[in-house]
Amino acid sequence: MRVVYTEGHAAHAPKRFIMRGEIGQSPEKPERAEILLTAAREAGHELIAAKPHGVGPAARIHDGGYLDFLENGWARWCELPNHADEIIPNVHSGRNMHQPPQHVVAEAGHYQADTACPIGPGTWEGALASSDVAVTAADLLCDDIEAGDRGAYLYALCRPPGHHAYADQAGGFCFLNNSAIAAQRLRDRGAAKVAILDVDVHHGNGTQGIFYTRGDVLTVSLHGDPAVYYPFFTGFAHETGEGAGAGANINYPLPKDTSDEAYLAILEDALETVATFKPDALVVALGLDASEADPLAFCKITTDGFRRMGQVIAGAGYPSLLVQEGGYISDQLGANLAAFLAGFEGNRA
Amino acid sequence: MRVVYTEGHAAHAPKRFIMRGEIGQSPEKPERAEILLTAAREAGHELIAAKPHGVGPAARIHDGGYLDFLENGWARWCELPNHADEIIPNVHSGRNMHQPPQHVVAEAGHYQADTACPIGPGTWEGALASSDVAVTAADLLCDDIEAGDRGAYLYALCRPPGHHAYADQAGGFCFLNNSAIAAQRLRDRGAAKVAILDVDVHHGNGTQGIFYTRGDVLTVSLHGDPAVYYPFFTGFAHETGEGAGAGANINYPLPKDTSDEAYLAILEDALETVATFKPDALVVALGLDASEADPLAFCKITTDGFRRMGQVIAGAGYPSLLVQEGGYISDQLGANLAAFLAGFEGNRA
Ligand SMILES: [Zn+2]
Ligand SMILES: [Zn+2]
Repeated sequence: MRVVYTEGHAAHAPKRFIMRGEIGQSPEKPERAEILLTAAREAGHELIAAKPHGVGPAARIHDGGYLDFLENGWARWCELPNHADEIIPNVHSGRNMHQPPQHVVAEAGHYQADTACPIGPGTWEGALASSDVAVTAADLLCDDIEAGDRGAYLYALCRPPGHHAYADQAGGFCFLNNSAIAAQRLRDRGAAKVAILDVDVHHGNGTQGIFYTRGDVLTVSLHGDPAVYYPFFTGFAHETGEGAGAGANINYPLPKDTSDEAYLAILEDALETVATFKPDALVVALGLDASEADPLAFCKITTDGFRRMGQVIAGAGYPSLLVQEGGYISDQLGANLAAFLAGFEGNRA
Repeated sequence: MRVVYTEGHAAHAPKRFIMRGEIGQSPEKPERAEILLTAAREAGHELIAAKPHGVGPAARIHDGGYLDFLENGWARWCELPNHADEIIPNVHSGRNMHQPPQHVVAEAGHYQADTACPIGPGTWEGALASSDVAVTAADLLCDDIEAGDRGAYLYALCRPPGHHAYADQAGGFCFLNNSAIAAQRLRDRGAAKVAILDVDVHHGNGTQGIFYTRGDVLTVSLHGDPAVYYPFFTGFAHETGEGAGAGANINYPLPKDTSDEAYLAILEDALETVATFKPDALVVALGLDASEADPLAFCKITTDGFRRMGQVIAGAGYPSLLVQEGGYISDQLGANLAAFLAGFEGNRA
């Protein structure tokens, strides 16, 4: 399988992860991408370096004020007295107060939904590099489709991940929504309808938000029940889209400790939903954090479960772009990626 | 002057203050109230212990779900693995995601606007004690008004402060909005119109929010310009009320380093606005953090400036309830309170 990657991600190296009032170390480390790249290389996949695309593709999805904050907020933050070495929000706009932000502390509280997306000196560079990976892979897929190959597929090794990023808000380790940017790239290059299938263990809330009122991009997400799991405030089954997007958003909240068998049964159901939509291409938001070994554990997917997930998704037959989302360091992380890619490719050979 | 106080505040002793990504010690310490009480005692004021009133008066202002969270959230938090010794939010509902909270981490992000209002085991007890002070003082003022004394006044030594608390959200060291609860108490006991004049250096955002659509309570606030100062997302001059409250909210954003002279000129203007409203009683949200010595410094008010503020406000002649809001520990804190009370009382003698 072709694997698009970059070294540029490493510029973003978040330090803090404030959860439940305690400051810990961010699990979204550069080392994640190294483990995934090593696993892909050792499995014999073809490595392709991402091309730089600048902010253009991201600007098709993201808000201008938000992009400015991601690019220039760090310099403004550095002018504050007693600032930390990362931008972390401390006061948030919301239902009670919502005048536009004018100060960088206000921008942080407006453009960062949580304390899990600290912004440091290299965040913008790393996030852009991650979107380069998604766009490069989307372009290669489009080239294949244009050449008449509707069985084409690639894996985009994106880091930092993207699916928690809204058009105008970072969150959950995510800044630029790579899956959404890739889907838009596919649309812009001719795919009339694109489906995004999100198998990360967390709800693809940013992706849902970006396409919630659009009928040209179907968003489907399987994830830990948000009644008890991040991101808590969205991801419920009754959220099905609005306006032109009515019916084009499908959420499958999963109970804690969901097994391979239960997961795969729901995945089959999700793929039937995708089939009804008749997409011209499929973006898989490929989180690996449903793993039984993941440090943010919620589900109990085994390495063989990931292989079967790849197999089942490949069997749906769409031109497919596999975009890396979450999945944190455990002794199974590399094996789970290799298993998913092997399962996928084995069902396309 | 009669000074209503409680020992009960000390049950609430917040530890953390996360600002600009760094964890520090909360400046909203029990010692604040001890310093203020000592200053009042040493100035010869009459001390009156607050009577318990339970949650009833607060429930006239605050949302039921919010009150339940304040009272019972701590027990739910304690059931979480790896929880900190205070409830601090890490992910917030907002413009992009806003399904009702079901988990205590979601409740925190829904009911706490920032990281400056941590909730510990004694927070509910301390916040209720603070509202008891406001209600006890309001009742005494109402007794005087009913007895025909329209020159009556009292000081309510409330801690924790209240003016950043919305009907359904804590923020900025505040949980129950004592000034709003007192104003409502005055309304419920017969004052047809009540004005709240907020001289805390921070915008009285919770108070504004609570009364924004009501015409019976005028809210006026002098505060550091929210373009560059907490709470950032509200407090601008163009926010003037809505519906029945249209025109009944007045904000005076102040530039950094505002002096006594400049402040007092604006205060005179604010009191003219209050006079136009013809209130039956005045609640002064008496923050002392506009002090030149305050650790959260923004303005440059001297101890003599506080004396003159008290003098000017007393001169307006309304039955008046002075409700303690912010003001943090410095070597001027006690003197500033004593000066304000002396200035006020000196102009009523
Ligand atoms: Zn995830
Ligand atoms: Zn204040």
